[in-house]
Amino acid sequence: MPHLLVKSGGLASMPEWKAAFAEAAPELNVAHWDDAVPVEDVRYVMVWDPEPGRLATLPGLHVVFSSAAGVDNITRDPDWPRHLPLVRMGGDNTAQRMGEYIAWACLSLLRGGRRIALSQAASRWENFENPFSAAERRVGIMGLGNLGTRAAEMLQGLGFAVSGWSRTRKSLPGVASFAGDAELDAFLAQTDILVCLLPSTPETAGLISAPLLRKLPAGAGLVNAGRGSHASLPDIIAALDSGHLCGAVLDVFEPEPLAADSPAWTHPKIIVTPHLASLAPRRERARYVVDAIRAYEMGAPLPNLYDPDKGY
Amino acid sequence: MPHLLVKSGGLASMPEWKAAFAEAAPELNVAHWDDAVPVEDVRYVMVWDPEPGRLATLPGLHVVFSSAAGVDNITRDPDWPRHLPLVRMGGDNTAQRMGEYIAWACLSLLRGGRRIALSQAASRWENFENPFSAAERRVGIMGLGNLGTRAAEMLQGLGFAVSGWSRTRKSLPGVASFAGDAELDAFLAQTDILVCLLPSTPETAGLISAPLLRKLPAGAGLVNAGRGSHASLPDIIAALDSGHLCGAVLDVFEPEPLAADSPAWTHPKIIVTPHLASLAPRRERARYVVDAIRAYEMGAPLPNLYDPDKGY
Repeated sequence: MPHLLVKSGGLASMPEWKAAFAEAAPELNVAHWDDAVPVEDVRYVMVWDPEPGRLATLPGLHVVFSSAAGVDNITRDPDWPRHLPLVRMGGDNTAQRMGEYIAWACLSLLRGGRRIALSQAASRWENFENPFSAAERRVGIMGLGNLGTRAAEMLQGLGFAVSGWSRTRKSLPGVASFAGDAELDAFLAQTDILVCLLPSTPETAGLISAPLLRKLPAGAGLVNAGRGSHASLPDIIAALDSGHLCGAVLDVFEPEPLAADSPAWTHPKIIVTPHLASLAPRRERARYVVDAIRAYEMGAPLPNLYDPDKGY
Repeated sequence: MPHLLVKSGGLASMPEWKAAFAEAAPELNVAHWDDAVPVEDVRYVMVWDPEPGRLATLPGLHVVFSSAAGVDNITRDPDWPRHLPLVRMGGDNTAQRMGEYIAWACLSLLRGGRRIALSQAASRWENFENPFSAAERRVGIMGLGNLGTRAAEMLQGLGFAVSGWSRTRKSLPGVASFAGDAELDAFLAQTDILVCLLPSTPETAGLISAPLLRKLPAGAGLVNAGRGSHASLPDIIAALDSGHLCGAVLDVFEPEPLAADSPAWTHPKIIVTPHLASLAPRRERARYVVDAIRAYEMGAPLPNLYDPDKGY
């Protein structure tokens, strides 16, 4: 019986992970990352943030699964086993949930979601008009992979005009595709709501800072569901306070959890969500990992493999 | 030059209304409801809540425009001039905005919008999984007219299964249509998120109360963007507190504005919005009224006419 070690969500989440894996694959031996399992018996791991060096101590390891769509918490380990397949969390459900979050975030910017929450907190009936309908706003998505594509479809259905910016040009119905550094400025100039779904790589770190924000039209909105390391929170706040940005919906921060004294929590134009944009229930994530393990054991290809050339 | 009297949003909104009408139709004489205009000179009115009896005092009146989609604040006047055309606010933009609101409200129920707002108010990083994706939830829309149809399209694009309940059966792609009292229970039994977009008529008053809520599946959500008179707020709160309902997004109340001491403001499962679901900017509403007046003056039909047989 192959062993799977789990490090995701802390010890408190292990009963739920074990129940989820037991339902999906009763034959799988599942243990916590810190349980006393002989290292040579560990064939699979599913991890979010393994401490650097630990993966390299597992001689029988075959596949590393990330418990989330990003793998940067794994690849930042200088000793992570590069020769092994690294599988990102994925599947239709992850894209569906991310799309829902992006749709909710863009509608919240369009319709004053933060203002509504502040009025409710003050028991204040404050009727207001929103200047634009979705048909008058252009959403620009940075990152047009599996997640960005589903988000683009949903946003178009709501009436938004949608464009995307990615490493290579994409062909999606009705979506203007901008590619590479050379077309970034043109992409930004026609974006009323900027959505970041980029993976975390050295090239994308710090991208969303003052110079980029200045290239957006005045009154633009921002949604960051990529990584906190993509963005400068002080620069975002400065752009909100100057009125250049109308609002921001932020799901990711650096570091996480966001500090209790961060100005983001109380800012009147920022909606803070606690890194839950694409989070699927453990039951579904366990099912995804089990399906991949079964495919692998039968010699079939693994899904959503990390590509070292792309860095995600 | 025909005269238009306006009563919508109070005296404070008149400069904006006058500017909006001046831009759309410089030839139109626009005055406030309480301005000293000879009654025989008033050819049109655009009103939200005229005091009973006043409309009957205008002998030269040709058309009554409602400044909103509902007309119940006009037809409740026992002396309103039934022989004149009564035009509901409408147009693609009203339906687009209502659809956006319904999409936002359903996504807020799906993704814990109220929980997110309460966590942010407490500067508390509280990561949580949502049990369902949109693909696993069925939205049931009461009222499948112009507004409900656009909402249904948007919800389908987000992945929800959508059904509708209306006086007469409708034929919309992919939308299960239930009709009349005989099919109400069957409609409710397959509805995970109930959306009320009904017009206010004697038949629909008080419909959303305990007996109806009990017919929804356990854990259902509720969105009311119809009228406050459709719903019993105490019954909704009781269903939320018992856990039978998972959450509610309420845009309309009886009376409005919602009292500052209403339990809805602070309820942990209720999102309160101040009757803004389909509210278009005054500039757009003025344009709609001007287009209708021009059509009427040229002998063309008026849009969105009140139907006394339907009561809306």
